[in-house]
Amino acid sequence: MSKKENTGKLQEGLTAKKLENFSEWFQQLILKASLADYTPVSGCMVFKPTAWAIWEKIKEETDKEFGKIGVQNVYFPLFIPESLLSKEAEHVEGFAPEVAWVTHGGNTKLGERLAVRPTSEAIMYDLYSKWIRSWRDLPLLYNQWNNVVRWEFKHPVLFLRTREFLWNELHSVFSSEKEAIKHGEKVMKAYNKITEDLMALPGIYGRKTDKEKFAGAIFSEKMHHYLPNGKMIEGTCFHYDGQNFAKAYNIKFKTKKEKEEYAYQNTHAISTRMLGAMFAIHSDDKGLIIPPKLAPNKIVIIPIRFEKNKDVLKKAKEISKILSRYNPLLDERLEVTPGYKFHEWELKGIPLKIEIGPNDLKKNQVVVVRRDNHKKITVKDKNLRKKIESELEEMQKELLKKADELLQKNLSKAEGLQDAVKKINQKKVVLVPLKNSKDIEDILKEKTKGAKTLCRPINQPKIKGKKCIISGKQADYWVYIGKSY
Amino acid sequence: MSKKENTGKLQEGLTAKKLENFSEWFQQLILKASLADYTPVSGCMVFKPTAWAIWEKIKEETDKEFGKIGVQNVYFPLFIPESLLSKEAEHVEGFAPEVAWVTHGGNTKLGERLAVRPTSEAIMYDLYSKWIRSWRDLPLLYNQWNNVVRWEFKHPVLFLRTREFLWNELHSVFSSEKEAIKHGEKVMKAYNKITEDLMALPGIYGRKTDKEKFAGAIFSEKMHHYLPNGKMIEGTCFHYDGQNFAKAYNIKFKTKKEKEEYAYQNTHAISTRMLGAMFAIHSDDKGLIIPPKLAPNKIVIIPIRFEKNKDVLKKAKEISKILSRYNPLLDERLEVTPGYKFHEWELKGIPLKIEIGPNDLKKNQVVVVRRDNHKKITVKDKNLRKKIESELEEMQKELLKKADELLQKNLSKAEGLQDAVKKINQKKVVLVPLKNSKDIEDILKEKTKGAKTLCRPINQPKIKGKKCIISGKQADYWVYIGKSY
Repeated sequence: MSKKENTGKLQEGLTAKKLENFSEWFQQLILKASLADYTPVSGCMVFKPTAWAIWEKIKEETDKEFGKIGVQNVYFPLFIPESLLSKEAEHVEGFAPEVAWVTHGGNTKLGERLAVRPTSEAIMYDLYSKWIRSWRDLPLLYNQWNNVVRWEFKHPVLFLRTREFLWNELHSVFSSEKEAIKHGEKVMKAYNKITEDLMALPGIYGRKTDKEKFAGAIFSEKMHHYLPNGKMIEGTCFHYDGQNFAKAYNIKFKTKKEKEEYAYQNTHAISTRMLGAMFAIHSDDKGLIIPPKLAPNKIVIIPIRFEKNKDVLKKAKEISKILSRYNPLLDERLEVTPGYKFHEWELKGIPLKIEIGPNDLKKNQVVVVRRDNHKKITVKDKNLRKKIESELEEMQKELLKKADELLQKNLSKAEGLQDAVKKINQKKVVLVPLKNSKDIEDILKEKTKGAKTLCRPINQPKIKGKKCIISGKQADYWVYIGKSY
Repeated sequence: MSKKENTGKLQEGLTAKKLENFSEWFQQLILKASLADYTPVSGCMVFKPTAWAIWEKIKEETDKEFGKIGVQNVYFPLFIPESLLSKEAEHVEGFAPEVAWVTHGGNTKLGERLAVRPTSEAIMYDLYSKWIRSWRDLPLLYNQWNNVVRWEFKHPVLFLRTREFLWNELHSVFSSEKEAIKHGEKVMKAYNKITEDLMALPGIYGRKTDKEKFAGAIFSEKMHHYLPNGKMIEGTCFHYDGQNFAKAYNIKFKTKKEKEEYAYQNTHAISTRMLGAMFAIHSDDKGLIIPPKLAPNKIVIIPIRFEKNKDVLKKAKEISKILSRYNPLLDERLEVTPGYKFHEWELKGIPLKIEIGPNDLKKNQVVVVRRDNHKKITVKDKNLRKKIESELEEMQKELLKKADELLQKNLSKAEGLQDAVKKINQKKVVLVPLKNSKDIEDILKEKTKGAKTLCRPINQPKIKGKKCIISGKQADYWVYIGKSY
């Protein structure tokens, strides 16, 4: 095998069903497909090779897209002094309850507590204020890929809710609001290439309500993905901070007219939570399904009855070489049966399986089986490379299509609270008219047993004459509500 | 310019001299060449785009080499519970005095303190013991790229001594000592490709004394690089742990004969300190010099008198396109003079400068200037691509050669303490006969005002009859001693 895989022990398949018991199914999927594991640190997980390779690919492709719009990567410290974190009032209020605090270095008590970064605005902007002097220094488009910690007290879920997670945080600075928002939109387009084209994840995009926006932002816009348990998970995001942080951290620049002005800022992120969303959305009761473009090994080749027929193994090796760009695994283990191998690679989500036995050898053909729909086709050797390419492409497209069908099926609309609650109980995401009010959102959460506002779609249906489903008064906007992580 | 550079303010050159005041020169170099900056967190720095791009390239190339020898990337948590860190006695003793401790999550005091990882043996091996059952699970070759924290109380130095740094840590597990050591040697060969072929850094390699070896290892071998201030800095490393950690963390496997045995382990690392070594070794009084293979932009194109001659700028753009694989910068700023530009790009270490003016245009030529030796050559357009390639190759080679000459010039040998001290005061690294004893090394440090043992070269000169320079008794080995970071 071109990459090492542990092969000794018999691997049990998934016993829980995705549609019957999502939580149990998801946990089994992650553990049995060897994507991740729990650790002795509560809420913190380990990323095993397949999951990590996928994350690295996502980073690589995001960097490519970011490079096209002028973004540069940097690295800032893990620790943020408490006084610095506290400079922007809303920001510290939003994050302080979840900060992991370092109080000692060795046996020495530190003069000031250090926050393990929950996000890096505070430390980055302090330096931005030192570096930025003139319009010539703008735009400044710095991104970092790092680990952050938010000490949540909710029940942790592998990938989806962990205390440490990894992400990119892009913190950009501009000389005008217009320029900031224009670049922010470009970033979201770049992210869409990653989530849609690579991860095959559709979503609904829109603006958060004031209650749910990022602590310190003027507005937050986010992508939301629908999980099969009816919960939405937040995806990529765009926070427009206006001059809020610039004022708190004193980021000023001289305009062309030599006037001093506070700068305008955006932040954006994509995190490892997205991996969880992707595994959950595409996989099935037999195990992992991942989009071919992200699969570290896109093919597994399984020779059949090759113990007595050396030509079979020889042919399998030839095929492996021909298809090397797909980083194929060749499973030539003798101690387990082909059936065992099929089962194992299905569980681990290799997109295409190629079987080759003595009969196929005679006929100059192989059998190709797709992981997502179990379609089995016989392919003549001379067509192999082309067919593999087209099957991978088709699989990639169909995963997105299927996920989008699931999403669309579960989007709904309601103009009354009772109807909304009914639909939420049916695991739907419901577009409702609502007033812009934190109190109303609190009542909404109570009445729906946990649903929150998700986002206000950019293209709003007519709101005039529509009544807020909580207050009965004229609503301010249409907003999606639903359960979420 | 293809990549954004801040251009507004006049940039002062280096005022300190490398050979006169290394510390001041090095700090100015790092800050003025925009490689890094200090932060409000003592001992923690920010990596700016050029330095970070170089580190990313080093990661990428290391991953390629690691892939060839079966290593896979993973990610383990940042935090390690105190009880877990304490399982291997020598290990915890070595690291505990420098651990940054997390004691609170939000307002809640944690039940157990969490160490911010100073290194990840404890958390990784705890999971290894769960995952490894049989010889079939071995070798297990897991690597991670991450950030670690060691709360040192010595004066911090940008890149060279920081409390947070980034590195890879490869923790591999084998079923025999022989296999472990064989793989460890392969890893060191892979690292050599990075340090020698890419970073152009020569070094001396050898085994650490028992006093200086890694806390918990059977033996440690390290590469050491000579800095122009006479101090050595440790580079890539190979710790062979034998079964020490396997016993502490209970990592057992069933052999082919169904016998239970403790596993054998190696660890290896390369860190961002190496960037500091590289900047320090190659750069000069005019600013940064970096090996062309690692330069994010290998060329800067400076058009001359192009304000009144549009063809000059046109030609400069053509050249930029032709040389796009070298990611050239085209400096078409009008507000600063060519002289200012030369100075700035020299300071920032772009390997090749291409000047083109109206005269060159007429003659179908450009002027190429090398950053390292200031060699200026006129190149006909038709030869440009070939000449650029050969100049970059030559520069890469010469940087290694020059660094090696510096190293060799400063290696020395001494058989008496007085001679050794004299040579150390001349900033040399001295090979001396010594007894294997912690006490003797303590005396050595005192007598030499701070020199330590560095490493015992693998190829040892004859030791029989040679007397330990401290005790006067028969020495156990030849060992390099010198000042170090």
